[in-house]
Amino acid sequence: MQLDTRFSFFAAAIVSLILLAAPTTSSAASEEKLVDMTFPFSEESIYWPTDKPFTPTVVFKGITDGGWWYASNQYAASEHGGTHVDAPIHFHEHGRTIGQVPLQEWIGPAVKIDVTGKSLANRDYQLSVEDLLAWEKKHGPIPQGAWVIMYSGIDDRFYPNRKEVLGTDKTGMDAVAELHFPGFSPEAVDFLLANRAITGIAVDTPSIDPGSSKDFKAHRALCKAQKLALENIANLDKIPESGAMLYVIPMFIQNGTGAPARVFAKLP
Amino acid sequence: MQLDTRFSFFAAAIVSLILLAAPTTSSAASEEKLVDMTFPFSEESIYWPTDKPFTPTVVFKGITDGGWWYASNQYAASEHGGTHVDAPIHFHEHGRTIGQVPLQEWIGPAVKIDVTGKSLANRDYQLSVEDLLAWEKKHGPIPQGAWVIMYSGIDDRFYPNRKEVLGTDKTGMDAVAELHFPGFSPEAVDFLLANRAITGIAVDTPSIDPGSSKDFKAHRALCKAQKLALENIANLDKIPESGAMLYVIPMFIQNGTGAPARVFAKLP
Repeated sequence: MQLDTRFSFFAAAIVSLILLAAPTTSSAASEEKLVDMTFPFSEESIYWPTDKPFTPTVVFKGITDGGWWYASNQYAASEHGGTHVDAPIHFHEHGRTIGQVPLQEWIGPAVKIDVTGKSLANRDYQLSVEDLLAWEKKHGPIPQGAWVIMYSGIDDRFYPNRKEVLGTDKTGMDAVAELHFPGFSPEAVDFLLANRAITGIAVDTPSIDPGSSKDFKAHRALCKAQKLALENIANLDKIPESGAMLYVIPMFIQNGTGAPARVFAKLP
Repeated sequence: MQLDTRFSFFAAAIVSLILLAAPTTSSAASEEKLVDMTFPFSEESIYWPTDKPFTPTVVFKGITDGGWWYASNQYAASEHGGTHVDAPIHFHEHGRTIGQVPLQEWIGPAVKIDVTGKSLANRDYQLSVEDLLAWEKKHGPIPQGAWVIMYSGIDDRFYPNRKEVLGTDKTGMDAVAELHFPGFSPEAVDFLLANRAITGIAVDTPSIDPGSSKDFKAHRALCKAQKLALENIANLDKIPESGAMLYVIPMFIQNGTGAPARVFAKLP
């Protein structure tokens, strides 16, 4: 009996180890399942019609006097275009700059609100409090530190087609009146700020406010609350509605009101 | 006896679960231990004496006609300055651009080679094959996919003091002959490319070649092998010599020969 008991003890220990081995190994592996959610920066990147677009310049490209190849470029752009973030100072006088937001704060659970049907049918659609509550009914409460993401389906389908994404392919002040794309309703932003401990809000369109907005209430409320914004996010079709972790990694511009960002999701 | 055996089985299972619970919980936590290893971009950022430095421009900062605060900037710079990466096309005609390197490739184990004593005593120090082998004697073989990092201690102590970091605070062509800072010896780079499956090499100085180099052999060999470089990395004193994971996250410039990067380490 003593031998039997010992055998049983070790057999149980081995069974437990086998049962736990799979998840433990997978979470420790360096091969995490990552999805790049960034549009590349080029002359085609989408910027606000009044903003300076991404402008690369070749400085040297060819064989040097020394006999070897060398290539080097410069770039210039607005802080607000392509896949990029807004710092709270963008729309609030006492908001933080990019340099004042710690790295860790940019990382949080991804809450993907699917409004593709409504957005593709109506380019002026505004994500509502009801859309947020419908997500929570399905997936539970919006987790602490979440990035709440509007999934309109527009960037995935049309970026960098300016006419489809912005509603106009004109540039300059005249184009602003022709902007049409979905965004967060002021009520949805106010609800999140009052009732959920979010990190920020994100969109697969050029702005968290809808294109038709004249008063930028989503930006103003979010920045006043010192929260973060992320715009023109790519590949939203490749992450689940719940359970992914979003890494929003901005260029570290000390006095930045915004910055280009490399964004990726770690899948559950 | 049947009961005893059952009890023993469950007792063993519980012991195993308790033993495994701690590491499993800690690796699943969202509060990872991250260290930001990026210097902020500003007019003070260190660039090559002949390159365009980081140049921010305020586009608007103040109260709009609508009555709310608004602030927005532009930026312009060389791709090669501050905390930044080099793509293989920088020194090889058939090398990949930033847009051609997948996100996952930029992430790898951090191998920190401490040459602070030699580097601070001799600003022309070149990291040697012997320095690499000394690390392996202490920590085991350089892991697959590693970022092999020269830790000179110079950026941590002196960045953005140009005289201390570059060896000169002059700009333009005349400054190039006065550059002095440590880097990788050509032999150390060739050894790594021939014998270890690395992701790239990194330095806490402005270039992987030493400042005194006239032929850029480290860059040329590394780029020819389609490997990656990382320059002006910060906070190397805050990561261990072995066991951290390095996330090198560049701005996604499609045709980039290099790019500003946000770099962080996940501590073991």
